[in-house]
Amino acid sequence: MQAFILSVGDEVVTGQIADTNAAWLSQRLLGLGVVVLGHAAVRDVEAEIIAAVRRAAERSDLVLMTGGLGPTHDDLTREAVAAAAGTPLINDPASLEHIREIFAARGLEMPASNAKQATFPQGGDVIFNPGGTAAGFRVTVGRASVFVLPGVPSEMRAMFDGGILPLLPETHTAIVVRMLKCFGMSESMIAERLGRILDLYGNPRVAFLPSAGTITVKFTATTATRAEATALLEPMVGRAAEALGEVVFGEDDATLQSAVARLLKASGKTLAVAESCTGGLVCHWLTEVPGISEHLLEGAVTYSNAAKTRRLGVPPALFDTVGAVSEEVARAMAEGMREQSGADLGLGITGIAGPSGGSPEKPVGTVHIALATPERTVHQKWSLVGTRTLIQFRAAKYALNLIRLELLRSVGR
Amino acid sequence: MQAFILSVGDEVVTGQIADTNAAWLSQRLLGLGVVVLGHAAVRDVEAEIIAAVRRAAERSDLVLMTGGLGPTHDDLTREAVAAAAGTPLINDPASLEHIREIFAARGLEMPASNAKQATFPQGGDVIFNPGGTAAGFRVTVGRASVFVLPGVPSEMRAMFDGGILPLLPETHTAIVVRMLKCFGMSESMIAERLGRILDLYGNPRVAFLPSAGTITVKFTATTATRAEATALLEPMVGRAAEALGEVVFGEDDATLQSAVARLLKASGKTLAVAESCTGGLVCHWLTEVPGISEHLLEGAVTYSNAAKTRRLGVPPALFDTVGAVSEEVARAMAEGMREQSGADLGLGITGIAGPSGGSPEKPVGTVHIALATPERTVHQKWSLVGTRTLIQFRAAKYALNLIRLELLRSVGR
Repeated sequence: MQAFILSVGDEVVTGQIADTNAAWLSQRLLGLGVVVLGHAAVRDVEAEIIAAVRRAAERSDLVLMTGGLGPTHDDLTREAVAAAAGTPLINDPASLEHIREIFAARGLEMPASNAKQATFPQGGDVIFNPGGTAAGFRVTVGRASVFVLPGVPSEMRAMFDGGILPLLPETHTAIVVRMLKCFGMSESMIAERLGRILDLYGNPRVAFLPSAGTITVKFTATTATRAEATALLEPMVGRAAEALGEVVFGEDDATLQSAVARLLKASGKTLAVAESCTGGLVCHWLTEVPGISEHLLEGAVTYSNAAKTRRLGVPPALFDTVGAVSEEVARAMAEGMREQSGADLGLGITGIAGPSGGSPEKPVGTVHIALATPERTVHQKWSLVGTRTLIQFRAAKYALNLIRLELLRSVGR
Repeated sequence: MQAFILSVGDEVVTGQIADTNAAWLSQRLLGLGVVVLGHAAVRDVEAEIIAAVRRAAERSDLVLMTGGLGPTHDDLTREAVAAAAGTPLINDPASLEHIREIFAARGLEMPASNAKQATFPQGGDVIFNPGGTAAGFRVTVGRASVFVLPGVPSEMRAMFDGGILPLLPETHTAIVVRMLKCFGMSESMIAERLGRILDLYGNPRVAFLPSAGTITVKFTATTATRAEATALLEPMVGRAAEALGEVVFGEDDATLQSAVARLLKASGKTLAVAESCTGGLVCHWLTEVPGISEHLLEGAVTYSNAAKTRRLGVPPALFDTVGAVSEEVARAMAEGMREQSGADLGLGITGIAGPSGGSPEKPVGTVHIALATPERTVHQKWSLVGTRTLIQFRAAKYALNLIRLELLRSVGR
């Protein structure tokens, strides 16, 4: 089965946002054995949307569209797709009720313009949007099934997984992807190590994708059935994981925070986090994992020296002698957090995220991380590069990785 | 002048990477007064690239292509563009010498496969690549000028600014964009209010872009000169900002956190933040703003009831009577944080981000936000929808907006 992805909106065509929806949908379709032929992005111009839908429908079995389902004058996708399908738009009372309820929950009347979000091409299927007012729909154009989703990524993703997957036809091809998520080794070192034991160019194909310190090793097998693909992948992924050892923190959708959460659960341990330069990012990432509240007792963002002393008991003398960005202060933060919260593990991070605040001895990107456990306190110093945001991201990842490795030692993988 | 952007490569079409090159080129072209008609991405398949180049050249004056200029068997862009132009590829000795030098600088012989990177369509212009072996080129296809650049973003960007800008014809058009960033009113309500005082369809054009509660109102003026465009925009943006009032938190790149940081600085006030369901996100967003450390004294993530009591002095009785997710606890968190940190403003957030933890009386998405000031404590209750991450994002934005509005009242905009 072949698919085409069509994004609608001036915000994409003028470059105001990069089209992450097309990339996400491509990955999902690949996982379903659907070959994506290409992407296109068109402006909020009805005639151009109609032409693009027709052309995409001529070339493929499946067209996935995003964007242009809002309530304002520049949202023209529903009108354009109905025109391409040659059907009128009709009202869906259930969708209208859902939109009214969303406004009512905020104590508001639904503005009249939102009513058009409850209209859909006749003969199509409505795809419910649990997260907003822009429901999607499916309709047939020529020989193709055209699925239309809103452009807001979180809503689009939830609707694809919840509303579209059950409607897709069988593909008779299996493209199965397995990913090993790695942290703590460079892309080229990982490639070199795997190149010695695996054929990187055969089937499954192997690719490497770096992102702010995380390296994803992607294995893609293309066969007739999922069982065959899995049988090809299983031994290959297993050998790769063995060769990379504790560098691998998980598979597929795993994140460093989900790996830490899993190990906290497996070990029954609790954690508390004291952050300075990362400003709450470690704590926020951990709370993205549902159910973390049983293991994450507390977080503190102690930006000022006074807060480090008052909250965590960092001795004030340290600020004068070694400075706030130092091994000693990171250790004192970690130990203070552990003691005061009663958690098994206490984390402390202090550093200079920039752009200002650096000095010749402590340049921007200097980060100290400490982890206090019942037995000992471990410490790492990193010299990170990049923008303020990138330094915060990398520091937070190193901190999560330190917790992960410490927990691994106590519970095993 | 009208342009089309064409990206070549399986890594884009399979979604391994999002196409940031197309977005970057669109922004640059917009700044030059060139209208971008659309984007497309095609696979590393020669016939598909040829068809896409021809189609893009039929529709526009200018085609900008990226990707597929590497030395390996799956790099087919130069062959495909030459075929579309109907000209053979010929050798360029200067380019070959540059590639040899790049390898020589690393003490290496140039591999034979790199020689094809020194071939270009006859009659075209070579675009030098100071950063790598993949030189670009310009060639005419039909009535269009086709510019071809490598896919590596840093090389592509340097070559566009250094090699392509001087070759572009004059546009005699200026396209200038201004954006108003809004929070606290729905897209449809903003559009309705502006529709009463402005022509949304004229020049400047008005568009709306929602993103997790933030609505960007974008004004695009297309005229002969930048001065004319600015003269058109100035009064229109001014009237819109006046009509929307405090819903507008800034322009262009502004975020709610940068608006709060600006107001904290203007008022000389300090802030401390106590978070439960948002898990540190408010604090992290604030620390994305350089220099915030002077005004953000402290953050606390108090997930457990015990931490709420120990850190913030929330009376334990409240958990039994009204529960942790309640107005009373939000107020106690805000007031406790304010007192214990010594900050002028104390924020407290408690809610249910889901997916579990909801009940009929307090469903997932119930969020209480309180802000304690020297004079009073204000409180808001929200019923938010969406995934766990989206509820956290929206709750954090409502919290930042509450701080912003409170600061506005004390310092004026």
